[in-house]
Amino acid sequence: MNAQLLISNVLKHISLDDEEKKLFASLFTSKSLRSGEFLIHEGDVCKYESFVVIGCLKAYKEDAEGNEHVLDFLIEEWWADDLYSFLTQTPSKSSVRAIEDTKLLQISKDDLETLYQRVPKFERFFRLLFQKAYIAQREQINQMLSISAEERYIQFLKRKPYALERFPQKDIASYLGVTPQFFSSLKKKVGQLM
Amino acid sequence: MNAQLLISNVLKHISLDDEEKKLFASLFTSKSLRSGEFLIHEGDVCKYESFVVIGCLKAYKEDAEGNEHVLDFLIEEWWADDLYSFLTQTPSKSSVRAIEDTKLLQISKDDLETLYQRVPKFERFFRLLFQKAYIAQREQINQMLSISAEERYIQFLKRKPYALERFPQKDIASYLGVTPQFFSSLKKKVGQLM
Repeated sequence: MNAQLLISNVLKHISLDDEEKKLFASLFTSKSLRSGEFLIHEGDVCKYESFVVIGCLKAYKEDAEGNEHVLDFLIEEWWADDLYSFLTQTPSKSSVRAIEDTKLLQISKDDLETLYQRVPKFERFFRLLFQKAYIAQREQINQMLSISAEERYIQFLKRKPYALERFPQKDIASYLGVTPQFFSSLKKKVGQLM
Repeated sequence: MNAQLLISNVLKHISLDDEEKKLFASLFTSKSLRSGEFLIHEGDVCKYESFVVIGCLKAYKEDAEGNEHVLDFLIEEWWADDLYSFLTQTPSKSSVRAIEDTKLLQISKDDLETLYQRVPKFERFFRLLFQKAYIAQREQINQMLSISAEERYIQFLKRKPYALERFPQKDIASYLGVTPQFFSSLKKKVGQLM
């Protein structure tokens, strides 16, 4: 298992000696998903925090008619999980599924508690991570409440400038809450503005 | 300034020696609000995390027609602030206002950073606090998306069983997104069920 990307990500926020790096890496296991495979099914309890080493996933909900509503996209150096389900150990209200072949590094809730006890510096790392998760969630609420699909699309491109290259257009349309047809015209319009 | 309630709240999550308690308390200043006074005006940057020692506040947004939409109620041992504004140091998108005479203890962002540096155990305390804030925010989203006003009201009473005694009925109605008239009939109906 190659934990280099994970460790270099952690080192942006806290310092670790070799012993601590070794312990940290030892608590993770690797998982591979082919494009289309599930990381979490709606209704499952999310047992792991999963760091994306390579690949891309989408988090989404399915409505009663079987339509997907994309909630988020996760790429390298993000944590792909249902954080609410992980923290509360209650059934997940969304699914997470790979949209490219994906490699992840996973830590369980028990091992994360072990990590906090043995290397308290990780309290800081995850304090910062949960702050970011709180901020992202709030931005998503603001986006849900915000004015037009065009504005939502422009905000989305600012946050994820790689979106058009990596995410299926139908998934971006679903994320924005518009039809694929409407998304086509939106893309054309915004493309001319930017 | 009496920091006893604040310190006993912290001691539920981490242990502190006398020196650490003294340092911690020294970083807070006290603030009093009369019922109706503002803690934060929409558009201000939230400069403090504020711990409620006694009293009660509401967080709300005002729409273009001047109608209040209550987002949350804060009582003793809660932190009353716009956390998004505090963390990102951007203008607050909501206001926070006392609905009873209220006493708070406040810490600035700089002093909180000082605290993390000088007593790293506080990383754990605030990591747990931000986890809880994340969870509460997600529950609020789920509630926004959830089925009926009746269901929302029952969930609300489970989370805040003291609500009817402490919060003005018009504020509860606003929080639930119903008219005061509809709330009256809801209260009667749910009262008979519970």
